[in-house]
Amino acid sequence: MASLDAQLEIIKRGCDELLIETELRDRLKSGRPLRVKAGFDPTAPDLHLGHTVLINKLRQLQDLGHHILFLIGDFTGMIGDPTGKNTTRPPLTREEVAQNAHTYTDQVFKILDRDRTEVVFNSSWMDRMGAADMIRLAATHTVARMLERDDFSKRYKGNQPIAIHEFLYPLVQGYDSVVLKCDIELGGSDQKFNLLMGRELQKHFGQPPQCILTMPLLEGLDGVNKMSKSLGNYVGINESPAEIFGKLMSVSDELMWRYIELLSFEPPETIRKWKQEVAQGRNPRDIKVALAQEMVARFHGKAAAEAALADFEARFRQGEVPENIPEVNLSPDGDGLPIAQVLKQTGLTASTSEALRMIEQGGVKLNGEKVSDKALRLGKGEPFVLQVGKRKFVRVTIV
Amino acid sequence: MASLDAQLEIIKRGCDELLIETELRDRLKSGRPLRVKAGFDPTAPDLHLGHTVLINKLRQLQDLGHHILFLIGDFTGMIGDPTGKNTTRPPLTREEVAQNAHTYTDQVFKILDRDRTEVVFNSSWMDRMGAADMIRLAATHTVARMLERDDFSKRYKGNQPIAIHEFLYPLVQGYDSVVLKCDIELGGSDQKFNLLMGRELQKHFGQPPQCILTMPLLEGLDGVNKMSKSLGNYVGINESPAEIFGKLMSVSDELMWRYIELLSFEPPETIRKWKQEVAQGRNPRDIKVALAQEMVARFHGKAAAEAALADFEARFRQGEVPENIPEVNLSPDGDGLPIAQVLKQTGLTASTSEALRMIEQGGVKLNGEKVSDKALRLGKGEPFVLQVGKRKFVRVTIV
Repeated sequence: MASLDAQLEIIKRGCDELLIETELRDRLKSGRPLRVKAGFDPTAPDLHLGHTVLINKLRQLQDLGHHILFLIGDFTGMIGDPTGKNTTRPPLTREEVAQNAHTYTDQVFKILDRDRTEVVFNSSWMDRMGAADMIRLAATHTVARMLERDDFSKRYKGNQPIAIHEFLYPLVQGYDSVVLKCDIELGGSDQKFNLLMGRELQKHFGQPPQCILTMPLLEGLDGVNKMSKSLGNYVGINESPAEIFGKLMSVSDELMWRYIELLSFEPPETIRKWKQEVAQGRNPRDIKVALAQEMVARFHGKAAAEAALADFEARFRQGEVPENIPEVNLSPDGDGLPIAQVLKQTGLTASTSEALRMIEQGGVKLNGEKVSDKALRLGKGEPFVLQVGKRKFVRVTIV
Repeated sequence: MASLDAQLEIIKRGCDELLIETELRDRLKSGRPLRVKAGFDPTAPDLHLGHTVLINKLRQLQDLGHHILFLIGDFTGMIGDPTGKNTTRPPLTREEVAQNAHTYTDQVFKILDRDRTEVVFNSSWMDRMGAADMIRLAATHTVARMLERDDFSKRYKGNQPIAIHEFLYPLVQGYDSVVLKCDIELGGSDQKFNLLMGRELQKHFGQPPQCILTMPLLEGLDGVNKMSKSLGNYVGINESPAEIFGKLMSVSDELMWRYIELLSFEPPETIRKWKQEVAQGRNPRDIKVALAQEMVARFHGKAAAEAALADFEARFRQGEVPENIPEVNLSPDGDGLPIAQVLKQTGLTASTSEALRMIEQGGVKLNGEKVSDKALRLGKGEPFVLQVGKRKFVRVTIV
């Protein structure tokens, strides 16, 4: 196992806040595997890199020998929105929960080691809890304490309704830590209040309080807003190797370092070296390539990563056409052929009218240059490369 | 059954508030026995007349043919004070609840008809409620709505802690009305908020909302503060006939009418007649006697009421001594005897020194007049009445 300081460096990397470091240090000293909890909604997510920030940290803790409790909060999910106001959040059935958990973990286990991850459902203890114990749990905190939570405070001051059960959910989440006897709980920075509930409830139940580790939200490809599907600035982990690779190559040099900190598993020494090299004039693009390759390899394997790199380099970086593209010889009509004919005869378009439309839309390139003249005639002689859209290439010789 | 208007007059008599009268009128019209709930703590009370105001109203409803649900809130009683701050309110065991309920109803059935009263314990449904349903119940109301309750609002503004479970108790109380399908709920005026919860929850669960009837707090014998054991201004229902009678005779003429309104079952016509008579010069003391007799009869029976009246009249009202008091003839020492000797020889005091002490304390009366002269000599001739304290009388003749 790594030294205490090395462990702490890995644990703290990229995190927003660690409470309380001295307590964590003491627990790490014990040498036993710590119980690390992270809670997830029982939805069927389509994960993007933003979601993986937290999961990466779990993986790092797993690699340090700690025990990961992947908690699915299905108890509240099966309650749904009891105010009935949110019709888009109907109560989930037990079957839906199981199905969603499957979808979730299938993605998560691209990062976490399936064999060393304990998936737990809080319904397994909360379903047995009676109203009386719920009341006892509610008695552990005051209304004023609950209204300290940022979103509650804002809504209360803004006369936005807060249903009383919303005060109970953080208690349920905190109680999960009691049942699981957690040493650490991870969450997004917006979860800090709830993670602290776990600390307080553990104290109430006579347990040493868990340490809490909050992770920041990942910025999207625009470098400004948080990564989100609805904003379109995301990289989905189920996207194709080429898409993942290409999107990551498109980020700014500054954002690249942020992504490396939160997404890469490269050791700190490597990252320090990269920074030094870039400071001394190395092209940051090289580092971006390394990051893009690591991400593609994580979600699609090493071979896919190498193929994606080769493909990317061929198409975008060097402006070259891919290797092994079809070669076609055409007979001229006089001293050459109209471009629409060439596109049709090579099969790049289905018809000359489609060919003309593609040219109009700017989707046709000749030797890498966009074609705008629909009447262009291509003559005999040297071969040339015609490209339609991003992926269709043909090398043509008019003989 | 009485006419609708007559029923309503009885129901509304002495009440603080009836919500909503038109709804109650509609339900009464149906002619079916209405389900009337009143909730009580599972404590073992020593009831005084203040407590009986509400129970009297139940009796009146019972006499109108309605069904009384005497609800004992043992579910929360068995939880106790889960904050652990109130060490004087430990959780009750099931045995204690049963014992207390017995003590309670033994007193209550001096007013209510035992055979037509359904005693229910809310633990019988709340013990089976799960945490999930408690959460659903909590979702029916907002934090802001709950903070409208007077005491919550004051405490919140005054930075006094409100534990979150305190928001759940009014919901539990309201839910009891749902389970019991109540038509009316009775409570003290300070309970209005909680009674409204019942209304709202019944609507939520698709039931017609109960009417609510709040009863005022009864003033104590001082006519100022609410009747309470700790203030000493109370009449306990287990006090002796003489005490109940005497205490009620001591109230002011004004307070007498208030007590009649809230405590007497005399029909409205009788009370109107009394008021008229007093206005025309009748001594209010006569009415007070009727009230005192009614109360003694209620808690000790008719014979006790008559005895108490006779005794009271003898001792206090007419300044007379009771009938059949011991008669003693003493021999004079010269032309009479020192009073201390008389007190000792008649057995009113154990010794002359006790006799002198009683005189000093103002506890000795001669023919109804307080004796202050310790050297007083009593002479031969007419019999006189000596009295020590309130109850010891002797008729003495020095022969």
